[in-house]
Amino acid sequence: MQKIAPKGAGVEVPDIVIGRLPIYLRTLALLQTENQEVTSSQELGKLLNISSAQIRKDLSHFGEFGKQGTGYKISYLKEQLEGILNLKKTRPVVLVGLGDLGSAIVHYNGFPQKGFHIQVIFDNDPQKVGLEVNGIGVQDSTELQATIEACGFKIAILAVPIQAAQKIADILVCAGVKAILNYAPITLSVPADVRVQNLDPVGHLQQMTYYLK
Amino acid sequence: MQKIAPKGAGVEVPDIVIGRLPIYLRTLALLQTENQEVTSSQELGKLLNISSAQIRKDLSHFGEFGKQGTGYKISYLKEQLEGILNLKKTRPVVLVGLGDLGSAIVHYNGFPQKGFHIQVIFDNDPQKVGLEVNGIGVQDSTELQATIEACGFKIAILAVPIQAAQKIADILVCAGVKAILNYAPITLSVPADVRVQNLDPVGHLQQMTYYLK
Repeated sequence: MQKIAPKGAGVEVPDIVIGRLPIYLRTLALLQTENQEVTSSQELGKLLNISSAQIRKDLSHFGEFGKQGTGYKISYLKEQLEGILNLKKTRPVVLVGLGDLGSAIVHYNGFPQKGFHIQVIFDNDPQKVGLEVNGIGVQDSTELQATIEACGFKIAILAVPIQAAQKIADILVCAGVKAILNYAPITLSVPADVRVQNLDPVGHLQQMTYYLK
Repeated sequence: MQKIAPKGAGVEVPDIVIGRLPIYLRTLALLQTENQEVTSSQELGKLLNISSAQIRKDLSHFGEFGKQGTGYKISYLKEQLEGILNLKKTRPVVLVGLGDLGSAIVHYNGFPQKGFHIQVIFDNDPQKVGLEVNGIGVQDSTELQATIEACGFKIAILAVPIQAAQKIADILVCAGVKAILNYAPITLSVPADVRVQNLDPVGHLQQMTYYLK
């Protein structure tokens, strides 16, 4: 098994390929909890409803992780994917918005389990400012820019109403945030060096009703 | 402007195109709230960071909605997209799981605003069964299959822990559900005629950390 190619050595990897890596990682982790040690592109493909050729092609962007006939050693491939996705260190995260959704996010243990630690919550409701939720302090939204700049946060979760989303995003970007997980059902306008991932449940439902008779 | 082509008349439209339609729809609705009456593929492209050629190509799968030089009439295009996505009638939805996330989902007004009405909630916690949350009754999970079959629900939102997700999905499928919005970080195994959309916030974060130095 070869080491992965150094980053930036080859051509740029398509976003859609990067988007599948967390899914591969998640599936490898699941197999590992079942004490499985080796897998194959065929097995992964079957579990994920993706062709095995696609999986091999996706992984080939980063090196060669398995051997023809013997498959992938799960612990090795998992570690390599974690390295590729820059997941080897924990990441401080800022949460903006402490409504119903924000509260659910604060209590979701999937984030810290995977190395994403919410360090500070921002809200503009004076009733909430100063509280501690799940051990995390709530600051006034007016302190957003100063706090992010002071602490160097790069990742933010945006759980504010649609009317406020772009304005808050502008402040986040201005303060140096480079990755925004956006729950507001709006396409944010951000500079090219800032990544946005959108989680709009209604859009996902609408995508499925197309197929409903 | 032509009418849309009858469904099934042409070749199958790629899933990725269908996935962009709700985003176009959302943006048209936003422009409408700003009292704008006409837009163009250029304007939409700029707002969405998608090429105008891509937008025209996507829409061309379903007919011709604008005129060269005059653009799209927003109310018309919006109505056509709603028709294509089968959004002209309200849709009853089942929610499974009333934890922190499930509670946030029940209170999210984006669902009913867009025609998705949660009709019944299922949970296996005896403390929750029998409650009414936001006017919606909570039933025991053991009644899942019987209730869905009796009422003919086709859409379910799955907000249960990862360990329970596949088992619940099997019951949903068995009861006739054809569209599952899955919040559990696991790839569900379902028959080909059942659609699943996944909302895994951790996967979305991991996809962005790839780009963080």
